[in-house]
Amino acid sequence: MKHAGLPIEDLPTPAVLIELDVLGKNISRQAERARAAGVRLRPHAKTHKCPEISRMQLAAGASGLSLAKTSEAEAFAGAGFEDIFLAYPVVGLGKAERLLALADRLRLSVGADSVEGARGLAAPFAAAGRILDVLLKIDCGYHRVGVLPENALEIARRIAEIPGIRLRGIFTHAGHVYHAETPEEVAGIGRHEGETLAAAAGVLRQAGLSIEEVSVGSTPSARHAMRMPGVTECRPGNYVFHDGSQVALGTCGPEDCAMTILATVVSVPAKDRAVVDAGSKTLSQDILRPRPGGHGRILGTASRLVSLSEEHGVASVEPGDSFRVGDRVRILPNHACVVSNLHDRLYGVRGNRVEMELEVAARGRIE
Amino acid sequence: MKHAGLPIEDLPTPAVLIELDVLGKNISRQAERARAAGVRLRPHAKTHKCPEISRMQLAAGASGLSLAKTSEAEAFAGAGFEDIFLAYPVVGLGKAERLLALADRLRLSVGADSVEGARGLAAPFAAAGRILDVLLKIDCGYHRVGVLPENALEIARRIAEIPGIRLRGIFTHAGHVYHAETPEEVAGIGRHEGETLAAAAGVLRQAGLSIEEVSVGSTPSARHAMRMPGVTECRPGNYVFHDGSQVALGTCGPEDCAMTILATVVSVPAKDRAVVDAGSKTLSQDILRPRPGGHGRILGTASRLVSLSEEHGVASVEPGDSFRVGDRVRILPNHACVVSNLHDRLYGVRGNRVEMELEVAARGRIE
Repeated sequence: MKHAGLPIEDLPTPAVLIELDVLGKNISRQAERARAAGVRLRPHAKTHKCPEISRMQLAAGASGLSLAKTSEAEAFAGAGFEDIFLAYPVVGLGKAERLLALADRLRLSVGADSVEGARGLAAPFAAAGRILDVLLKIDCGYHRVGVLPENALEIARRIAEIPGIRLRGIFTHAGHVYHAETPEEVAGIGRHEGETLAAAAGVLRQAGLSIEEVSVGSTPSARHAMRMPGVTECRPGNYVFHDGSQVALGTCGPEDCAMTILATVVSVPAKDRAVVDAGSKTLSQDILRPRPGGHGRILGTASRLVSLSEEHGVASVEPGDSFRVGDRVRILPNHACVVSNLHDRLYGVRGNRVEMELEVAARGRIE
Repeated sequence: MKHAGLPIEDLPTPAVLIELDVLGKNISRQAERARAAGVRLRPHAKTHKCPEISRMQLAAGASGLSLAKTSEAEAFAGAGFEDIFLAYPVVGLGKAERLLALADRLRLSVGADSVEGARGLAAPFAAAGRILDVLLKIDCGYHRVGVLPENALEIARRIAEIPGIRLRGIFTHAGHVYHAETPEEVAGIGRHEGETLAAAAGVLRQAGLSIEEVSVGSTPSARHAMRMPGVTECRPGNYVFHDGSQVALGTCGPEDCAMTILATVVSVPAKDRAVVDAGSKTLSQDILRPRPGGHGRILGTASRLVSLSEEHGVASVEPGDSFRVGDRVRILPNHACVVSNLHDRLYGVRGNRVEMELEVAARGRIE
């Protein structure tokens, strides 16, 4: 059943709503920010996984897309996109062969943080007399993947020597910003991210390596990191939708959140408890950062979802709020990116109408 | 690309593997347990969402399926299943109309825990001169949805009077068993679940209501609850696969877990840290119950995933373990049901070969 053109109240619940006016504002504001800083914007499409939204981002001035997985790049290649950076240390011969096929169709570059990983990627490219563009991942404090800045030169040199590889640049992701507790801490992490990466680029260039791209990431940190001299590109993703975590971090206000979950109250078993039909299959179990604060705010009320099972969202009903079986509510999710991955479609809405269905074409692309 | 017949090492990662021998044993053991207790077995198919596995359960003696959502029932109806219980308080006119269409195709019954909810379901049935079978949900201590035993008679009477409804039975789910800390506590919760429900059935029958079905649920509690006099049916789901949470609860041993995640080590950025390509998009963020214990054990090692982001699983490498980029590992997930919902297919394996691809036909059916 198609829902475009219908009033929102005709949607079956749970449903993921995207306020198109807010989405448009978020996209143009981020593009303007990158222009003002003089850096390229290469948004991470993991937040929406929708070709339709990537097209809006490119139309507003983005230079290409970031993605994580090989199969996501295949989905976006199928939708006609021509410039993709896989910001992920892709590993494995099967993957390398798929990257070679992708590189026939579009401008592709891939992350790496180890000589072994890069060698594996290079093999089919070298055998075919082709070159794969690689960016070395630097760890600027998140301590997930990436080489430490002090080791970057040695690893970069060894990767640059691998036949079939061109070391095109370096990149980082300050994921630890999501644990920051104040806007000042967010800004400090962002500046450190940009400075660390620019300094690493300087060291590599001094040693004779050609580093074209110096790329920073994350919605909270990017606006600070992109202003550091030497940074050439930013890769925020979440900004298209924002979410409860961004509001808690001070990255945006509640009015900047484009994604809400439309849900139905299915049970009110006690005065202080109401249960909606959106559980972890819709919202995920991702908790609110930086402060634990439940699983989603019920908009227009003081109540929150305090626990989730797969099909149930349990709200603790605050004094002054009341819910009845059959009521429809909207929930502000903690983490928009994981919500997109749980759904085949999002509903683009304006006012009380569903304007478009957005296919989450790269949903569940885990490989 | 089809993978049936190939060796496991040819699978792209991450991939969800199902050991078919373990699956078969789990299915026949549960069927035997229900037969021995003299109750019907109506497994909850949410754990796998695969018609192929439900067929194995029916072949072993199950009397029908349990599901939660209307759209899941539609998926299984499309695959030819003829007896479905929606163990969920379905609410909403659109849903009621879809249930009416489903009731044309199969034997359907639906949960309810409120008069308002049941009225909404009944309306299109009454208008069409049809009858919907409803089971009243009783809260036996989980405190999620369901009416308290002391209120059951009043609500049951009012639901039974609604035109278009036949009150066929009562059901419960002792979800609090997942917070138990010892096998004795699990057994106690199971016995209480069965006794509470059987006692409620007695009260309703004494008041003249016809209660055919007295149905209990949950893999840890079912084996205890189903032995209580008066229980007629059990609805465990997780037992087909089991998982880290069941091992921690003592419901099964590690050798009874059919589902593992095949993943590749993509980065070893420090001696004590290795990162695999399976993150929350594969494993979910569900934590280990009853004790917090990371996001999944790496089999054959002492190491565990200690944090997940969407595409990264970060392992804390224990002394004696070592990982190299490119290594393939198997991970025991905390919660099998949510893993199935994140994937389009599971790989049924025997020994080192992929024997079949199992389509997760009801994946992402949230409505």
